[in-house]
Amino acid sequence: MSDYKEMWTSLGLDQQTHDAVLDLVGKTYQEMFLSQKNRPKGMEYFDFVVSEIHGLRIRELLDAKAEGRKVIGTFCVFVPEEIVLALNAVCVGLCAGAELGFEAAEEYIPRNTCSLIKSAFGFKLAKVCPYIEATDLIVGENTCDGKKKAFESYGDLVGNLYVMDLPQTKSEAGKALLKAEYLKFAAKLEELTGVELTVENLKKGIETVNNKRKAMHRLAELRAANPVPISGLDVLLANQVYFYDNPERFTASINAICDELEQRIANGEGVFPKDAPRILLSGCPMAVPNWKVPGVIENSGAIMVGEEMCTGERGFRNLTDDGANTVDELLDKIVDRYFEIDCAVFTPNKKRYDHIKEMVKKYKADGVLHYSIQFCQPYQIEAMSVEKNLEKEGIPVLSVDTDYSQEDMGQLKTRVEAFIERIKS
Amino acid sequence: MSDYKEMWTSLGLDQQTHDAVLDLVGKTYQEMFLSQKNRPKGMEYFDFVVSEIHGLRIRELLDAKAEGRKVIGTFCVFVPEEIVLALNAVCVGLCAGAELGFEAAEEYIPRNTCSLIKSAFGFKLAKVCPYIEATDLIVGENTCDGKKKAFESYGDLVGNLYVMDLPQTKSEAGKALLKAEYLKFAAKLEELTGVELTVENLKKGIETVNNKRKAMHRLAELRAANPVPISGLDVLLANQVYFYDNPERFTASINAICDELEQRIANGEGVFPKDAPRILLSGCPMAVPNWKVPGVIENSGAIMVGEEMCTGERGFRNLTDDGANTVDELLDKIVDRYFEIDCAVFTPNKKRYDHIKEMVKKYKADGVLHYSIQFCQPYQIEAMSVEKNLEKEGIPVLSVDTDYSQEDMGQLKTRVEAFIERIKS
Repeated sequence: MSDYKEMWTSLGLDQQTHDAVLDLVGKTYQEMFLSQKNRPKGMEYFDFVVSEIHGLRIRELLDAKAEGRKVIGTFCVFVPEEIVLALNAVCVGLCAGAELGFEAAEEYIPRNTCSLIKSAFGFKLAKVCPYIEATDLIVGENTCDGKKKAFESYGDLVGNLYVMDLPQTKSEAGKALLKAEYLKFAAKLEELTGVELTVENLKKGIETVNNKRKAMHRLAELRAANPVPISGLDVLLANQVYFYDNPERFTASINAICDELEQRIANGEGVFPKDAPRILLSGCPMAVPNWKVPGVIENSGAIMVGEEMCTGERGFRNLTDDGANTVDELLDKIVDRYFEIDCAVFTPNKKRYDHIKEMVKKYKADGVLHYSIQFCQPYQIEAMSVEKNLEKEGIPVLSVDTDYSQEDMGQLKTRVEAFIERIKS
Repeated sequence: MSDYKEMWTSLGLDQQTHDAVLDLVGKTYQEMFLSQKNRPKGMEYFDFVVSEIHGLRIRELLDAKAEGRKVIGTFCVFVPEEIVLALNAVCVGLCAGAELGFEAAEEYIPRNTCSLIKSAFGFKLAKVCPYIEATDLIVGENTCDGKKKAFESYGDLVGNLYVMDLPQTKSEAGKALLKAEYLKFAAKLEELTGVELTVENLKKGIETVNNKRKAMHRLAELRAANPVPISGLDVLLANQVYFYDNPERFTASINAICDELEQRIANGEGVFPKDAPRILLSGCPMAVPNWKVPGVIENSGAIMVGEEMCTGERGFRNLTDDGANTVDELLDKIVDRYFEIDCAVFTPNKKRYDHIKEMVKKYKADGVLHYSIQFCQPYQIEAMSVEKNLEKEGIPVLSVDTDYSQEDMGQLKTRVEAFIERIKS
């Protein structure tokens, strides 16, 4: 631990604030995760990961850097991890899920900016995120207006920001734009890493990321069981860790948990009673330690059976086809894969409705809780169509807009409890 | 008038609500415009236009339709009017500037959507806008998240919506996207109108729109005089009418006013005392009858000397070069012209800072009032950089976020008055 303190100081963190953050994460984790009953034993790996959230993993990143590898920070599932890994770089998610440094952030972005974006500024300004400080390059992207415009000043703040443009429509022109941006990004990374893309390293990158996704598919499918063998909170945590852990170790850990869950299912064992109300969570991503809404759901007697979000199935749904024999063809396959992502920044984005319905069916959800971060216009607006569309087909929907504060906890509990009553009946 | 009632009924308007709207516009116009002292006589034309806002102009549109011409409704200065006019169609702006039908609108879009978008829904749902009802095609565009996502349900509501995609960056790829979209739009209009683009009709369209712009340039330049020969409110009104009036008549009316203003300047005559504090307005567009902030400024003893907004210089700044001899080359010139528009949806958008500074200098402004519609993230975020950038160079900035309600009038007045005190000293 004293060893880490030195590391944190070397990264320029504010020691006092940083200690407080770790303390808060630890306490929240204790209350929300460790207190759960009958957890799979395999979750111990994630307990360890969280206890070392700013320790061991950061040490690994710094060791990788010492070996000449580059660390790429990301904020979005549109960043093609396959390319990052192919070039021997390390990919780490930088989204932050806590209300910290917001006052300082509001010197750069308006008060009515979503918590996810504010948190990215807040964590940098409060000097509490060793991930940000360990990066060689941070990748921003033109998704929503909030991010697109905020990255302009975030760039000045961090000094190593690269912004990727993204299309707004699922048209041929949109796909061409994505391809052009991925080519530019690959060239940028080749320059940074001094490594060139080859068929071999690209196929290896695709394999590594696909394995991670396949493990998540396996985990997801096991949640269709009744009783459900693992809590939604635990799966969400795995989804969050997905973005910054060592990919091979992560994959092995998820597969080990799946082995255990299969045994549980065979024994009819679950974390919640059989026939507990089942909720599909849908909407905006949730970054560590944003466990507010899932906590309310699972503390109210319902269980989360799926997450239709970037920290969930939207992030890992599709595999990348590696059936090609040139770098350019493999890049086309990567573009094909990412172009399927049904983020609400696209217009129209109707496939998302189908995906939600498929997940409801597959995971036998009794209802959908649509989660929008306050001031996230794409998801807030789309939520209204999602709700109409699903309710029309008899799928109950509760649409929740909230932020990272605890102020609306009472109201949130009341609404979630009423929704659970509705879907039980 | 009874004649118009029949026309309005035939367009499906709600008679009672529509009467109330016209009544309110009339009263507000009386209070804010007709009560001004020493107005140019040429403004009588605009008094007439406003008194006939849903009357004569709608009759003209219906007459044009009867002759087989098509009416194209627009919400954005990115819609190339040159192409619309070339194809013998009529272009009318549909942005609305009043808090009307908001409750009904909130069935389609979230409460925290900007007033401009809500008003587009509100006017349709309340059945009070004869322009919307007179259109053959309404053109939406992917600018901000609010519009982009709201147009998805607006399309269901109006039934004749065409959405144009727009780039987010000023890159070569961005320009190619704009070109592709303008080609698609031209093809769509050719199909709708049954007219084909030719060098001749396109050059004529360019000439008509350029003439309108040149008249606005002439008017703008006259405002550099001290005392200022025309109020900012009156010029803003002209800017608003720019979007739905007959273009030739509009151009002639503006030029007539300019003749009169030149005489005034020669006589040292103004609408405000010499050396009155001079404010440049910058930011979001203001649609009729959104005169709230300008009213506060000019009722507090300052004068607006320029509008850096879509209903202002951002809308008419650049001319379209007609120096080409094929349809495709002329379309390239049109793309060149529109690609220069410095809307805050672009990232980065630094030329806008230069334009604001140029306008401050040209119109001898003492300070800039940056106006953002509440929940308009692109302008709200950009406002913070604009403010830092200008203040650094000694240009005072007041940044105001407001909506279409009258609730914050007291606070607004206090802030504007304090700002005027600051720039006077």
